[in-house]
Amino acid sequence: MKIDLTLYLVTCSDGLSEKDFLTKVEQACRGGVTLVQLREKKKSTREYLHLAKAVKEITDAYGIPLIIDDRADIAVACDAAGVHIGQEDLPVWAARKIVGNDKIVGTSAKTVAQALAAQKGGADYLGVGAIYPTTTKVITTLTPIAVLSDICRAVSIPAIAIGGLNLGNCQALKGVPIAGISVVSAIMKSENPEAAAQKLHAAVSDLLN
Amino acid sequence: MKIDLTLYLVTCSDGLSEKDFLTKVEQACRGGVTLVQLREKKKSTREYLHLAKAVKEITDAYGIPLIIDDRADIAVACDAAGVHIGQEDLPVWAARKIVGNDKIVGTSAKTVAQALAAQKGGADYLGVGAIYPTTTKVITTLTPIAVLSDICRAVSIPAIAIGGLNLGNCQALKGVPIAGISVVSAIMKSENPEAAAQKLHAAVSDLLN
Repeated sequence: MKIDLTLYLVTCSDGLSEKDFLTKVEQACRGGVTLVQLREKKKSTREYLHLAKAVKEITDAYGIPLIIDDRADIAVACDAAGVHIGQEDLPVWAARKIVGNDKIVGTSAKTVAQALAAQKGGADYLGVGAIYPTTTKVITTLTPIAVLSDICRAVSIPAIAIGGLNLGNCQALKGVPIAGISVVSAIMKSENPEAAAQKLHAAVSDLLN
Repeated sequence: MKIDLTLYLVTCSDGLSEKDFLTKVEQACRGGVTLVQLREKKKSTREYLHLAKAVKEITDAYGIPLIIDDRADIAVACDAAGVHIGQEDLPVWAARKIVGNDKIVGTSAKTVAQALAAQKGGADYLGVGAIYPTTTKVITTLTPIAVLSDICRAVSIPAIAIGGLNLGNCQALKGVPIAGISVVSAIMKSENPEAAAQKLHAAVSDLLN
């Protein structure tokens, strides 16, 4: 499946009502995110599925693929575009078996060895990082931009930079053959997610050229 | 898939080390449980999968089917015999889509209407209850034995009684056309899970005749 990874939004609903959360996601879609990953760690299966369906109504309206973090079963149940598999999640092969070949399976990598293994396992794209410190995940070690660059050159699947990226620091990625960047706080914690997404999309588009 | 639901163990690992938990499960298998459902609500996907594989080594050795609570994705990833879908989990159709037709999909029902809907949705068996108060789940209302009996007669799929059942109270189910009973504490909290399973299996076999 051909996907535009330019501006990959990972959601964070912490501290938001469902209504406010969905409003932020819609503003981000309007602003130009090219993909949305719904990421929930504390919800029951049914709650996660409920929210996934609500988000999918929005992403469908904007023609943006929805990726479900961690849960291949929920990706199937809500007919999302795919699933993102982290280090604490299923193996890539198991996710692929569950979602089939028509859906996206993305995964995370911190090293060239992990990236090559993920590609061999059938991953469609890689999230590489954290490039910078972030408050939305517990990060043990950062991934240097040089390693990100090595990974991009070592694999044939697209890789995106993740972790603490924003308008101010993403310029440091200029020249690195990434397919895009992933952000959480830079959009979800912005007072104006639409404008934040617009500016980030323009900045990343410039980076990629 | 033909399954023996006579004595259906639902696990509870709360307060146990992994080693002690697996020892209890093995003792229960040796004692005669006919099916094991692994039920974990707090673990990450990878932790749940790790434990599922460890339990499956035991159940495979005893030729007992392993059912995974809630997580159809983990059932696929560890190649369990099936998945049990509760009220807070995926819809039955979604679980069926994920695990395919060769695996078991069980679900819970409290009323004849829920039971008929579950059967129509493709469930292979029903867990009906709670018959008695239980400490292992938050129960809002109990299911009278008369309703359990109505459910058994309304559906063609097998139904088992769940909730607070033990050697002392299971005799009350005599004459109800159940396929078996499900227990947690009566085995998992026993000092001697093997003996507890043996006695329960004998008692339930007697009930079913």
